[in-house]
Amino acid sequence: MLTISQRALEMPLSAIRKLVPFAEAAKKRGVKVYHLNIGQPDVDAPKEAMDAIRSIQLKQVAYPHSAGIESYRIGLAKFYQSLGMTDITVQDIIVVTGGSEGVMMAFMVCTNPGDEVIVMEPFYTNYRSFARWTGTTLKPVSSGKNMDFTLPPISEFEKAITPKTKAILVCNPSNPTGYVYTQEELEALGALAKKHNLYLFADEVYRDFLYGDKPFFSCMDLKGLEEHVVLIDSVSKRYSMCGVRIGAVVSRNKAIMGSVLRFAQARLCSPALGQIAGEGALATPPEYFDAMREEYRCRRDYMVNALNKIEGVYSPMPEGAFYTVAQLPVDDCDKFAQWILEEFEYEKQTVMLAPASGFYATPGRGLNEARIAYVLNVPDLEKAMKCLEEALKQYPGRTV
Amino acid sequence: MLTISQRALEMPLSAIRKLVPFAEAAKKRGVKVYHLNIGQPDVDAPKEAMDAIRSIQLKQVAYPHSAGIESYRIGLAKFYQSLGMTDITVQDIIVVTGGSEGVMMAFMVCTNPGDEVIVMEPFYTNYRSFARWTGTTLKPVSSGKNMDFTLPPISEFEKAITPKTKAILVCNPSNPTGYVYTQEELEALGALAKKHNLYLFADEVYRDFLYGDKPFFSCMDLKGLEEHVVLIDSVSKRYSMCGVRIGAVVSRNKAIMGSVLRFAQARLCSPALGQIAGEGALATPPEYFDAMREEYRCRRDYMVNALNKIEGVYSPMPEGAFYTVAQLPVDDCDKFAQWILEEFEYEKQTVMLAPASGFYATPGRGLNEARIAYVLNVPDLEKAMKCLEEALKQYPGRTV
Repeated sequence: MLTISQRALEMPLSAIRKLVPFAEAAKKRGVKVYHLNIGQPDVDAPKEAMDAIRSIQLKQVAYPHSAGIESYRIGLAKFYQSLGMTDITVQDIIVVTGGSEGVMMAFMVCTNPGDEVIVMEPFYTNYRSFARWTGTTLKPVSSGKNMDFTLPPISEFEKAITPKTKAILVCNPSNPTGYVYTQEELEALGALAKKHNLYLFADEVYRDFLYGDKPFFSCMDLKGLEEHVVLIDSVSKRYSMCGVRIGAVVSRNKAIMGSVLRFAQARLCSPALGQIAGEGALATPPEYFDAMREEYRCRRDYMVNALNKIEGVYSPMPEGAFYTVAQLPVDDCDKFAQWILEEFEYEKQTVMLAPASGFYATPGRGLNEARIAYVLNVPDLEKAMKCLEEALKQYPGRTV
Repeated sequence: MLTISQRALEMPLSAIRKLVPFAEAAKKRGVKVYHLNIGQPDVDAPKEAMDAIRSIQLKQVAYPHSAGIESYRIGLAKFYQSLGMTDITVQDIIVVTGGSEGVMMAFMVCTNPGDEVIVMEPFYTNYRSFARWTGTTLKPVSSGKNMDFTLPPISEFEKAITPKTKAILVCNPSNPTGYVYTQEELEALGALAKKHNLYLFADEVYRDFLYGDKPFFSCMDLKGLEEHVVLIDSVSKRYSMCGVRIGAVVSRNKAIMGSVLRFAQARLCSPALGQIAGEGALATPPEYFDAMREEYRCRRDYMVNALNKIEGVYSPMPEGAFYTVAQLPVDDCDKFAQWILEEFEYEKQTVMLAPASGFYATPGRGLNEARIAYVLNVPDLEKAMKCLEEALKQYPGRTV
């Protein structure tokens, strides 16, 4: 008999995807679904990027260089320099097919099948897929009952480290929690990486989405960790261009970059049209980001306050990205998220949430939590919060 | 000490890439280099595709569906139906990030690390990279001394099959040989796949490049092999759009398609802008392909005849793609290809070839062969052939 591979059988189906048919059914019943589950920015992409696409005069769309279009890489070097990484040059940058490929490249180059990568729980659900894809094992380190999602104690990391551990993966600002790590936290993590000879994979694709007074500190600025840090970046969120599939791997470690290039050569190149959009986007004026941040800050302020006013709900005030992980007074958020689509409606409306269980590797964790995104405008968020409040009143599995 | 993974250390650096510095040095000396090594079509992309890009009116570039933009998949279903696969529907098609990702998806879904995929030698050099990437082992089956590259005897495949064999990978028309397999050959291969419960991966990205009278027969038309065949397609060569990174995996096997979708969901989506170009390209009129084929046919006729007129050179007459694998009267084509860039010039010109060693997995095979592409216009090909002829006269390692 023809068989499917074990790795295919083990590729996780995320909790969100399991809910999609229920959302579709709700829409078919004429119920308006507010999507609090998605991470796709709804602000306009920069005009500079879209104009670059619309004015393409190419006769063919040829293969760009495997490391990226040279002029784009030069532009990216200036961009990273402007962020404070003043020594970064073109040689330290390889353009990849989205942050997704960037994480996979880091796994492929720094780990062998069976090796372990430590990640703070809750974490971006697709990290698990990338680990499965590359044969690497994720080892979660948990914040425990700490619902503010600060860095778990270093002693917890020490416990998780084995001879197979090759790297620690940090998402900062964090998807799904919106937490922004402090310089002190990252220095402690850096010291640990140095002590145990581990790579530090820094997924900073949300670094433009900051709402608090806390300054952003990049792992790339950790002193003495130059050979350890591999930055994974993406244009997806920064410019509302998730679909172009363009990101970058940035590292001062020459051996890493040489190896990433080998993998990059195997798949020939990253998408040329997306790179052209990305290069155009480098000319985006600062006002674009000011307006974007202000819009998301308003949404965050409204939504987190509204959540905390609902009885039994707790959300920290996230300082970055555009998500929060909130505690809900429910038995099992997977069941609640399905029920709210399948059996509930309020004035012909309902909401779709991302149950947090998919963001945890430890079984049983996050059952009463959901990731809630604020990529809707405030009037829609108001209606969504009202729906959520009513649903929690009616849900049969309510706990408190 | 920080270490690089074994799989990164083992990622092959292709013979062509080793030559790039020598080609660049030649250009710096003012020598014109005719690139007979590349596989990037030089005809214009269809106006329909480029217009689709230039008229984009999106405000954001959002994530398309992981399986591809719905309207594009509907268009692709009609396209494949028009090629004779009359039963193919949208559900049998997943848009992928180039044929490269398509091959990797097939490997990921149908093999586990350590499993084996049989491939006819010589083969597309990056198959080896995809195998390394996915932990799969390529098992070459050789045409032996047969320089016309017909299907090796089925007995040779039988010898290569082990309990770990999961699939046979067929590139038709073949890169690098340009050979087009007959219906009889593919039926024999299909019967073997059926007998041993193997998948048949059909890389048909060159199917539009046919110059002989032999009708093209797709593995997708093999009767009784519906569950075995996984088609890998790409828009790269068909529309001169290598850089858009758009391809497709097509199969009637529901388990395969379900598993490919899981992997597709992990990397979120294929590039949206490339999909828009691909959808635009579906409106390309037949005359486009007629003119393209006629142009390549002229080039092939000129080049292959010119090669066979050079003393000691043999090239079969390829019926498809835009390459030939030719025998050259040299000791080691890797050395010759470097010498011709480093130490030779003729009227301030030289050529770059792809040594065939990189297209073989069997050590020592293909040493006196080169893949020669005809993606230059005939006047340039004339100059390139003259250079090659003169170089072979002067090369110190000439054998006959």
